[in-house]
Amino acid sequence: MEKQEVMLKKVLKVKNILAAFSLVLIFWGLSLSVRADEGMWPLSEIQKLNLREKGLRMDPSLIYDPARQSLLYAVVQLGATGSFISEEGLIITNHHVAFGSVQAASTPEKDYLKNGFLARTRAEEIPAAGRSARITESFKDVSAEVLSVVKKKMNPAERTLAVERKIKQLVAAAEKANPGKRAEVAEMFPGKSYWLFLYTDLRDIRLVYVPPLAVGNFGGEDDNWMWPRHTGDFTLMRAYVAPDGKPAEYSPNNVPFRPRTYLKVNPTGVKEGDFVFLLGYPGRTYRHLPASYIAFEQKVRMPAVADWYEWQIRLMEEMSKTSREVALKHDSRIKGLANTMKNYRGKLAGLRRLNYLAQKQQEEEALKAFIQADPKRQAAYGEVLPSLEKIYKDMELNYPRSFVLDNLRRSVILFQNAMTVVEAAHERQKPDLERNAAYMDRNFNRIKQRLPLTMRTSFYLPTDLAIFKELLKKAQALPGDQKIDALSQLLSSGSNLDEIANDLFRKTRMQDVEFINTLWDRKPADLKQIDDSMLKLALSLYPEYLEMEETNRARKGQLDELQAKLVDIRQEFLGQQFIPDANGTLRLTYGRVEGYEPRDAVIYKPFTTVQGVVEKTTGREPYDTPPALLELIKQKKFGRFTNPELKTVSVCLLYSTDTTGGNSGSPIINADGELVGVNFDRTWEATINDFTWSHDFSRSIGVDIRYALWILQELGGAGYLLGEMGIE
Amino acid sequence: MEKQEVMLKKVLKVKNILAAFSLVLIFWGLSLSVRADEGMWPLSEIQKLNLREKGLRMDPSLIYDPARQSLLYAVVQLGATGSFISEEGLIITNHHVAFGSVQAASTPEKDYLKNGFLARTRAEEIPAAGRSARITESFKDVSAEVLSVVKKKMNPAERTLAVERKIKQLVAAAEKANPGKRAEVAEMFPGKSYWLFLYTDLRDIRLVYVPPLAVGNFGGEDDNWMWPRHTGDFTLMRAYVAPDGKPAEYSPNNVPFRPRTYLKVNPTGVKEGDFVFLLGYPGRTYRHLPASYIAFEQKVRMPAVADWYEWQIRLMEEMSKTSREVALKHDSRIKGLANTMKNYRGKLAGLRRLNYLAQKQQEEEALKAFIQADPKRQAAYGEVLPSLEKIYKDMELNYPRSFVLDNLRRSVILFQNAMTVVEAAHERQKPDLERNAAYMDRNFNRIKQRLPLTMRTSFYLPTDLAIFKELLKKAQALPGDQKIDALSQLLSSGSNLDEIANDLFRKTRMQDVEFINTLWDRKPADLKQIDDSMLKLALSLYPEYLEMEETNRARKGQLDELQAKLVDIRQEFLGQQFIPDANGTLRLTYGRVEGYEPRDAVIYKPFTTVQGVVEKTTGREPYDTPPALLELIKQKKFGRFTNPELKTVSVCLLYSTDTTGGNSGSPIINADGELVGVNFDRTWEATINDFTWSHDFSRSIGVDIRYALWILQELGGAGYLLGEMGIE
Repeated sequence: MEKQEVMLKKVLKVKNILAAFSLVLIFWGLSLSVRADEGMWPLSEIQKLNLREKGLRMDPSLIYDPARQSLLYAVVQLGATGSFISEEGLIITNHHVAFGSVQAASTPEKDYLKNGFLARTRAEEIPAAGRSARITESFKDVSAEVLSVVKKKMNPAERTLAVERKIKQLVAAAEKANPGKRAEVAEMFPGKSYWLFLYTDLRDIRLVYVPPLAVGNFGGEDDNWMWPRHTGDFTLMRAYVAPDGKPAEYSPNNVPFRPRTYLKVNPTGVKEGDFVFLLGYPGRTYRHLPASYIAFEQKVRMPAVADWYEWQIRLMEEMSKTSREVALKHDSRIKGLANTMKNYRGKLAGLRRLNYLAQKQQEEEALKAFIQADPKRQAAYGEVLPSLEKIYKDMELNYPRSFVLDNLRRSVILFQNAMTVVEAAHERQKPDLERNAAYMDRNFNRIKQRLPLTMRTSFYLPTDLAIFKELLKKAQALPGDQKIDALSQLLSSGSNLDEIANDLFRKTRMQDVEFINTLWDRKPADLKQIDDSMLKLALSLYPEYLEMEETNRARKGQLDELQAKLVDIRQEFLGQQFIPDANGTLRLTYGRVEGYEPRDAVIYKPFTTVQGVVEKTTGREPYDTPPALLELIKQKKFGRFTNPELKTVSVCLLYSTDTTGGNSGSPIINADGELVGVNFDRTWEATINDFTWSHDFSRSIGVDIRYALWILQELGGAGYLLGEMGIE
Repeated sequence: MEKQEVMLKKVLKVKNILAAFSLVLIFWGLSLSVRADEGMWPLSEIQKLNLREKGLRMDPSLIYDPARQSLLYAVVQLGATGSFISEEGLIITNHHVAFGSVQAASTPEKDYLKNGFLARTRAEEIPAAGRSARITESFKDVSAEVLSVVKKKMNPAERTLAVERKIKQLVAAAEKANPGKRAEVAEMFPGKSYWLFLYTDLRDIRLVYVPPLAVGNFGGEDDNWMWPRHTGDFTLMRAYVAPDGKPAEYSPNNVPFRPRTYLKVNPTGVKEGDFVFLLGYPGRTYRHLPASYIAFEQKVRMPAVADWYEWQIRLMEEMSKTSREVALKHDSRIKGLANTMKNYRGKLAGLRRLNYLAQKQQEEEALKAFIQADPKRQAAYGEVLPSLEKIYKDMELNYPRSFVLDNLRRSVILFQNAMTVVEAAHERQKPDLERNAAYMDRNFNRIKQRLPLTMRTSFYLPTDLAIFKELLKKAQALPGDQKIDALSQLLSSGSNLDEIANDLFRKTRMQDVEFINTLWDRKPADLKQIDDSMLKLALSLYPEYLEMEETNRARKGQLDELQAKLVDIRQEFLGQQFIPDANGTLRLTYGRVEGYEPRDAVIYKPFTTVQGVVEKTTGREPYDTPPALLELIKQKKFGRFTNPELKTVSVCLLYSTDTTGGNSGSPIINADGELVGVNFDRTWEATINDFTWSHDFSRSIGVDIRYALWILQELGGAGYLLGEMGIE
């Protein structure tokens, strides 16, 4: 599914992601000759789309017009996407988007994750730990300002650093000028185009209704990325603000937020062929990168990550057998790992099916010929493709080494804690604007809040230790010239790897949140005095990470230049403008409710039904439909939520919009601007969206609003919430 | 797939199967009010079917008329089914039907199984080890004669024995009166109806063309029972006879058999909606058994067998990693086990999906009420359902014990050999007609031939030993009152189970075929003098098997009576006649080329294409399409084999006939009596066929003749065989 945890981490750990090279390259342009349904459009461009001709009945300017009550303001970013559906701050999003918060609120005794949750009064609404909701207030092009700091003599690393510094200054200035707002600069087009976004950040978000796991996560990992789907993947939350209407942290005195606009819920849904559009915060796409990038992803990175995640999943599943309590610690992690693993496997299958790499290579051969045909073009662009190729070849060569460093930090929680402490000690010494973004004053609180949350909800020592050992084994197996000194030294310090790791875990306090809290304001020299094995390991590895960061910064500088040129020459060669790649900012995508042919001799219809829920039900996870729901289906108490074409309640639907991770929870909006469903996934065949879009295969999956409302009313007994939505 | 090995074993080991209770119960009647496509019809009944109205264009009497050259004589039983397609004895059947023979002919150096095989001349055709082809010559009702021996005073076991004896006498008399023919009496309807079949048995069968494994078994176990399917599951063989035209064992002097009739191959195939019919030898269906039988299958037998087979498969896959040679020993066994396992899992899913047990129970409640409403009915039928229930309850209680005994003999080859020797010593002392069928003179040769073949193709000691140990563990875990004395004694003879088993395997010569050959004509007393551990174990367990056989015989006697009554009263109650269950004799089934909706929101189209082969190809087993084939597809050299609706070559097709195991290799015949494909499987949803048939779900799967011919001509380079089929 279009998982939010991944997105959240992307926002928080830009550095790590740079290290993983998964969002390095972003192209953006505009297309006038694009296929009807392709594209994740920035809202500034929608007037050019002739949406009326495509099927929209409402005035397109009511979607985005800063001067009016436009739909824009009904959409929030909360990890992934959500939307307001009442004037009192009621938000609808996905069950899987709220998953982490529900997990954090659950205990073996009050297992809201398993049994679901309903607040019967406002007072019963539970704070959604770690959750905030962000509304896009405005955006403007700041490319000229950003690029003004780039000087010809700069080397790539200097260039990157200068741009980063300028962006921080712009952000600081914008936040100063707009008190209470949050500013961010998004790189719309590497080395070329930068936009400044202003957001309102609502920080008191509460759970209102969560369906039972067997509804909200029906089909679990088996069905994830799959059609036909029967998951009631929706949840209701509510945003609160201080009594004066300003964003604030949780307080019992807070009052419901009153959004400038909200979406009207249409309980009659849509039918096959209907026009729909989504608003949302799609994360990243990589549609215009060179073949050498695709080769790196296809042959090196994605298979390695998929295998590694699969290994971790098996480990965690084994550990989870211990008790329901231990299982709860792993649920969310397994979900995240499995989600990415299956996505990568889907992409790898899609790349193979479309023979995409060969296509790309063929296109680039033609492009090379085009460049060589003209001496001027050759001078300007002759080195672009070979240089890009060299960079990715380099990344491939160094991959085993960076894999170990990257995953030590990503997967071993105690090491992650130690490294965060070490990094904080270094970064917090610098002036605020010089720091890595995560350690700037405006962000640092999040780290301090998230670490205890992670420890409480996700840490289980035997799992952490087993992952650490596995990575040590991988370090041990690195070729001579890639060895990581600090780890080699550690490994030579005892008789065998197992004992070394056990010993190291015995001698650390990095699981002790209170102890860690005493370390946040220490200087690096102070940390060296502390007798803690994991902290010592982090200190000894810190130079490696610094070096990696420096390499990545230099590489990004190179890539920015090369990609800018590649876009220019490809546009010239193809005689067209490109569709903008997603970059985590607000976008619109439109399409129709329609099925497709996923493979030879198979047709997928665009609606599933409650009868399909019964068909899949086995009584065991992940197909353990609540008996009460089976009974409701048997009774056919469908009433006004009946899909008139199918004579039953439809559960999920397919539509040909262009979505990616981050679009989870996006409202599915009909031609009149009304909510008719909640987006939560793409099909397996559409995981390839991140590289290339296809009308034949790219389908998004949403919950039909009729199913959500029926569940709310009949299973949840929360009819009063329908009243709040204005449904009589 | 509709696997032949299972069928072959069924024919050879009727006793074992009785022990497994899987073919105990067979009903048969005729229906006049049946749905258009249901039913596996005995040929005697086809005139009543109005096939002309259903779509047949040829004269129905040309399908079966003993006086004419009817299609009947073009169909052979060779484990499953095959058909003659030239006047020189060329047979087309499935790749998986020939699998065992191809495996037996393969060595690591000449790996015909993997690479395929083509005989470029008659002289190059290879004997298909253990294969014979049987033509149905005639059949007649002998019920009166068989039942004449049943006396009122007999107890159930005596009754069964008397019927068995009478059948043997009828067979002997028929074979004497028809020299060179083979006679068999089939129980069409337990306790009621018996037919005598006369067969011609062709015993010199040779391999002519076998596609590469990656074509003939494309998709392997992954795709088995699945749609969409892209398997070129066909093979060509040829039947030979002595120069005088009589059936004979292999001899280089033999000449091709000239069938009375053969099927004309139509290279233009069929299209969606076309009428088709199959002739073939379906094995067993169980459509009219009581709910207590379904409960036993669903809750006890099928889950236990599926789990046990899955365990064996994992073991054999592990063992197969040793070498390609060792892997070859397991290939056929794994295929057989996985086939049954997946079939059972499919049936269990289907039973659940249709809620079949509850339906049956509901029908029986109504039937009980009907019986109780009339004192005469109550007197005659009041005990039928309770008594059947009691029998199946009994079988459930004793299942763990009989599981161990049954699987010792079924899965441990060395024990199987020893038990066969012991049983032969006892049975061969009796007059021929008193023996268990397998040990009668007319059958005994098959045992002697099959044992060395099994040893050569399928025996691997570490696997045999591991299975033996697992069964000993299960014996150890039996509840006190179910303990098997001889095994308990064995288990108390040493320090631990592992050592006991290892020791037993060290001290046996039951892997030595020559040694076993010296034991066939010994008396039981002689065997006791031989110092062989496995033989001693078999001798000590022999009384257990005798007792089990006796129990089964008595049970069959009871069941025969009860089922006969159940059929009578159900027909009275429902006011209709039943569709005949399959019982391994020649049947016709008809339907149309059509897709279906396997589950909510999914449609399966009735044809797959070569583009689907490309889509599935991964380069790794079981999707490792030969590069030459990929190249042919790329070149689109389809010529006259193009499916005109799809503009490409169609690979497999779906049709709504009523098939089960044994229908593998059945010719798919068009309205004009021409061959348009070869049946090889049912869909996963259709595994439920064995219990109940449904027009919504029951689809059979065949290879499109156009794909087979295209492969033969373009990939196989065997165009001259098309010439032999009369295709210019």
